[in-house]
Amino acid sequence: MTRIQELSLAERAALSPAEARALFRAGQVLPTAGFSAGYAQANLLIVTKELAFDVLLFAQRNPKSCPILGVLEPGQVASELLAGGDIRTDVPQYFVYENGVKVAEPTDLNDYWRDDLVTFIIGCSFTFESALIENGISVAHIDQGVNVPMYKTTVRSASAGVMSGPMVVSMRPIPAHQVADAVRITSRYPAVHGAPVHIGNPGELGIADLGAPDFGDPVQIPEGYIPVFWACGVTPQAAVMESKPLLAIGHAPGHMLITDARDSQYQVP
Amino acid sequence: MTRIQELSLAERAALSPAEARALFRAGQVLPTAGFSAGYAQANLLIVTKELAFDVLLFAQRNPKSCPILGVLEPGQVASELLAGGDIRTDVPQYFVYENGVKVAEPTDLNDYWRDDLVTFIIGCSFTFESALIENGISVAHIDQGVNVPMYKTTVRSASAGVMSGPMVVSMRPIPAHQVADAVRITSRYPAVHGAPVHIGNPGELGIADLGAPDFGDPVQIPEGYIPVFWACGVTPQAAVMESKPLLAIGHAPGHMLITDARDSQYQVP
Repeated sequence: MTRIQELSLAERAALSPAEARALFRAGQVLPTAGFSAGYAQANLLIVTKELAFDVLLFAQRNPKSCPILGVLEPGQVASELLAGGDIRTDVPQYFVYENGVKVAEPTDLNDYWRDDLVTFIIGCSFTFESALIENGISVAHIDQGVNVPMYKTTVRSASAGVMSGPMVVSMRPIPAHQVADAVRITSRYPAVHGAPVHIGNPGELGIADLGAPDFGDPVQIPEGYIPVFWACGVTPQAAVMESKPLLAIGHAPGHMLITDARDSQYQVP
Repeated sequence: MTRIQELSLAERAALSPAEARALFRAGQVLPTAGFSAGYAQANLLIVTKELAFDVLLFAQRNPKSCPILGVLEPGQVASELLAGGDIRTDVPQYFVYENGVKVAEPTDLNDYWRDDLVTFIIGCSFTFESALIENGISVAHIDQGVNVPMYKTTVRSASAGVMSGPMVVSMRPIPAHQVADAVRITSRYPAVHGAPVHIGNPGELGIADLGAPDFGDPVQIPEGYIPVFWACGVTPQAAVMESKPLLAIGHAPGHMLITDARDSQYQVP
C-alpha cells in the first residue's frame, strides 16, 4: 500500500476522496490539508442521541464555527458525503472524550461505536484553501508541511442546553496586500466558516503566543504577514471538553473527513 | 381596546411589534400580513423535548421551507425576538395537534403549556412583502384583505427521524413583467424562504385548483398574472400531521408571531 507520508504535495492533491479515505481506513494517519484538491473536508462530532438536540442547537446558534454539512441518523454510518465509506473508519484519527476528558486517539471507532450515536459533519476551512491557492494566496501550513495552527479564544460561543465553550479559530498568515482578497474569497464559502472572524491582533482573542497553538502545529509567520483567524470546526469539541457529556467523539484536529462534495458546491456568488 | 378589525391597512402597518403582540395577547384574532411593516414575522412549531432533535434536523435539511430564526430552550417562553412578550399568548391563534390531528384552535396556550416544550421560531415570507411593496410589486392578499393562500404540494420534504411530509407553499400572483423582480428581491431574504421554489404551472406541484388552498384564503388572480410559489413555514405542521407525534403546536397559518427583528436584518447583499 502507498505510504501516505511519502506522497508529494502534488500526489496528495491528486488523490480522489475515495482513494484518500481508503488510505486512512487502512490505518494511516496524517493531517489532511492539501489532500484531494477541490473536495470539501469536514469536521466530525459524534454524540449520543440524548445530547444530539443540544449539539444541533449549538451549531444552529454558532453558524460560523459549526456550519452543518450533514447529520447522520442515530446508528447510521454511511452517507452520500462519503460514498462507499464508513464514518467509523474513514477519518485518519479520532479523539474519544469521556466526561470531557480525552481518553483515546484511535484510528477507527470499531471499539466505541453504539447504535445510539449521531454523527454531525461540520464544514472545514480546508475547503476554501484550494480557492486561496488558485488566487495566488499561499497557505503556510501546506507549504510548511504541518497541521494548521488552532487556538482556543476568550470569545464565548453561544451556548445551547448543556453545550457551552470557547470559540476555536484556525490561523493563516497572509501578506498584508492579500488580506482583503483572502476575505473576499473566503466570504464566498459561508458553509465552511466563510469570512475571517478576526484579522491581526491575536491578543484581543486572548491568544498570548501564536507559536503555541492549542491544536495542530505552529507555523512560521514571515515578516509583514498578518495573522488571519477563521472560526474553526474544533469549536464543538472545545464545548464538549467544558460540558463534559458521558461520551463524545471528534476527529483529531486537522485530520478531517474528506468528502465527495466539491468545494464549489459550497460557494455562493 | 382598539378593535383590530377596524384598523385601516395603514394603521396596521404602523403598529409596533409590541403593540401588535399586545392586541393579539388580549385575544384578538386576525391574519398578520401587513402588520408592523418592516418587522419580521415568524412561523411557530412547538414540540416536546423528545421530538425536538428530529424537528431541528428536519429544519436543517429543509432550509427553504424551515429557516430557523430562533429556538427556545425547553420550557422557555421569553425571547429577545419578542421583548417583554410570551410565546404562549402573543400569537393571534394556535393550532394544537394530538397524534397528528388538530384538536383545538386556542388563542393562547395557557391550558397546553408544559415545561418540556421546545419552541421553534421559523422565518416567514410575510417578512419580504414590505420589500416587494416598496419595489412597486403589489401583494394580492394584502390588497384584498384576506389571508395568503397556502397549498400542500406533491413535493416531499427531506425527512428527518420521524418527521416527514409534503412541502407547503404560499402563492402570490405577480404580473409577468415583475416576476423577475420578485425573484431578485426575495432571493435577498434567504432566512425567510428566499427565492420562489416554483413559478407558474401549479399542476407540477400537484395543485389542482388555486381557488381551493389547503390553508388561508383564495385570492383573485388578475388576467396575465403568474402564480409564484414560495416555500412556506407551515411545512413542519404538514409533517406533524403525517408523523403524528403525541403533541405538537403550531400557529394558525397566516396568524404569525410578529417579532422585534427588522426585515432588513435578514437581508443579504
